[in-house]
Amino acid sequence: MADEILVRADRDGIAALTLNRPDALNALSDDLLAALSAEIAALENDRDTRVVILRGAGKVFCAGHDLKEMQLGRQAEDSGASYFADLFRRCADVMLGLQRLPQPVIAEVHGIATAAGCQLVASCDMAVAAEGTRFGVNGVNIGLFCSTPMVALTRNVPRKVAFEMLTTGAFIIADRAREVGLVNHVVSHVELREKTLDLAKTVAGKLDAAVKIGKRAFYDQIDLEMDAAYAHAAEVMTQNMLWRDTDEGIDAFLAKRKPDWAR
Amino acid sequence: MADEILVRADRDGIAALTLNRPDALNALSDDLLAALSAEIAALENDRDTRVVILRGAGKVFCAGHDLKEMQLGRQAEDSGASYFADLFRRCADVMLGLQRLPQPVIAEVHGIATAAGCQLVASCDMAVAAEGTRFGVNGVNIGLFCSTPMVALTRNVPRKVAFEMLTTGAFIIADRAREVGLVNHVVSHVELREKTLDLAKTVAGKLDAAVKIGKRAFYDQIDLEMDAAYAHAAEVMTQNMLWRDTDEGIDAFLAKRKPDWAR
Amino acid sequence: MADEILVRADRDGIAALTLNRPDALNALSDDLLAALSAEIAALENDRDTRVVILRGAGKVFCAGHDLKEMQLGRQAEDSGASYFADLFRRCADVMLGLQRLPQPVIAEVHGIATAAGCQLVASCDMAVAAEGTRFGVNGVNIGLFCSTPMVALTRNVPRKVAFEMLTTGAFIIADRAREVGLVNHVVSHVELREKTLDLAKTVAGKLDAAVKIGKRAFYDQIDLEMDAAYAHAAEVMTQNMLWRDTDEGIDAFLAKRKPDWAR
Repeated sequence: MADEILVRADRDGIAALTLNRPDALNALSDDLLAALSAEIAALENDRDTRVVILRGAGKVFCAGHDLKEMQLGRQAEDSGASYFADLFRRCADVMLGLQRLPQPVIAEVHGIATAAGCQLVASCDMAVAAEGTRFGVNGVNIGLFCSTPMVALTRNVPRKVAFEMLTTGAFIIADRAREVGLVNHVVSHVELREKTLDLAKTVAGKLDAAVKIGKRAFYDQIDLEMDAAYAHAAEVMTQNMLWRDTDEGIDAFLAKRKPDWAR
Repeated sequence: MADEILVRADRDGIAALTLNRPDALNALSDDLLAALSAEIAALENDRDTRVVILRGAGKVFCAGHDLKEMQLGRQAEDSGASYFADLFRRCADVMLGLQRLPQPVIAEVHGIATAAGCQLVASCDMAVAAEGTRFGVNGVNIGLFCSTPMVALTRNVPRKVAFEMLTTGAFIIADRAREVGLVNHVVSHVELREKTLDLAKTVAGKLDAAVKIGKRAFYDQIDLEMDAAYAHAAEVMTQNMLWRDTDEGIDAFLAKRKPDWAR
Repeated sequence: MADEILVRADRDGIAALTLNRPDALNALSDDLLAALSAEIAALENDRDTRVVILRGAGKVFCAGHDLKEMQLGRQAEDSGASYFADLFRRCADVMLGLQRLPQPVIAEVHGIATAAGCQLVASCDMAVAAEGTRFGVNGVNIGLFCSTPMVALTRNVPRKVAFEMLTTGAFIIADRAREVGLVNHVVSHVELREKTLDLAKTVAGKLDAAVKIGKRAFYDQIDLEMDAAYAHAAEVMTQNMLWRDTDEGIDAFLAKRKPDWAR
């Protein structure tokens, strides 16, 4: 695993990013946010990567911001005001960056995912969790309401569920997380790696350009009114129809054979 | 059933539309879309119809667009660009047309509902499914991302559920579809017709004008901010209060008798 | 309970408001709406209150508007048009007022919550229900579509669930209400008071300013696009970080001791 704080491993078009600060519960320090930001920038133009997996080394997925580092930020002349504003902007950029990546991003979650760690899960396109994984936005316990994690969380789960998590600091466990929409699948701890990889391989096996144009359209249309959403989606789908590989995909389907897609 | 591709049967204020291309899995060909569009136009001004049911003849509800016909569209000089753009616009108009109908529309779903067939289910106001019915937006399997079905689907189910369906092409089964909000009820195959009809009759038994003003308000307010949504809903409800039949309905309720509503 | 129509009891920073028209199923008469409005105004500037509980005296939580009083409104020269418009505006103001209160509001629900009573539940930030509690927006049964309750309901539950409730008048029972997001917890009738109070105490035990800034941010961001939502949430969280009590809360957490928060 070396001593990098973010480890990237590529195989068969799947890039696995491992948060690698296990002793700090993979807290999102300035350095780790910068490393994530750099990988996101690299992935944006990485045409060989079809799917991204995000996981954590050690006992947990991610415990949120690095509180020790944040407290040090208070030593500035402005008591940290400009540092904190910049930190939350950089963190939001990473979260939005995951959504803006052309590749689908799957969170592989175990142990705990709290505060900005829970926000990471909510910001990924899909998530697989180990049984018993605890999800929380529990900054309120230390007097720091999870306002930025709330943005992602409230777009994943019903509002009363989100409100309770935010104001009580209580955890929800993996099965409930699936029930309310925060994760897609819950499997045993020993199956977590394989299940996530299977999901990644399934997506990586599709026509890459279709997945990528689709992910972009997903978020482009989701907040639009119906008319505008349909106008946009119809344009995207028309463009998609005109590709040679889609022509081949449909022909192959009608002929009950496998498509001959150049890879 | 004759040989019409869309069969309409009316009884007691309930119009049942049956997609009737069973050999083509009720695929939405140009002709079937045109027939649906014509029935929607007719229903808009049909004051005798209180509820609409949409079902499919044969083994499945609807398998989406007619791929053979779409492939023929490529023979045009522009490789089909204008045909596809027009096709997706016409299809979206049908989907939006179901929402804009004054009458509630109930999907009666069995077998499979895929791609634009799944979009039909999502576009209906309510849905009843037979046990085991499979729902998918699986165009990605043939290189054609289900961008327009996505518009309706993402307004029915949590976003991680929708994302997985769209990028993996995987089916969800009826019970899961109910859990995530895509259908209202799941019943055995033999009960499907009756359960759907019961639901239709229940709605048809209400004061027709109240149901119709309510359906319109439902979609008019759903994307507004709270203040604007309340301002609109309060106007609608004030208007509703001033009807003679509503006056009678409330009087009857207070007197514990049946309302005398002219029908 | 005296003979006030809205009883307020305060203890340990928790204000319990009891709808107290049990003989009228706690229907929201003009007087009760005015009393709620007055308490909401008082609570807005009540810095000692950290959490609000809303419950109903007698057999049910709340059965909606006061239909007898509404019928009397028809005797005006305009057949009640201006009265009804004003009534629905005042009612919406109460519902929005609950959301705009700085304190979290928890509905403690038993028996039935129908029409504007169901809207009250949907408008509270959280809700605890007794087993078997029935929730409905059943105005359609008397010819009066629940257009204003719909505004709150459709922001709590999936749209097909809401549509069915609105057009059939059918109840959903407590367990289903939790499944679809309308309530947070379902407990036995005898545990209802205690469970709600426990939830209130948990929230009241957090740093008050953090809960209040968080609740405001919750609704301020929920309808914004992602970019704008993050920009707003980041500002709120930066401000939150600069409080002395948050500094202390984080220090205490890092030192594994209890925070010394002045109360």
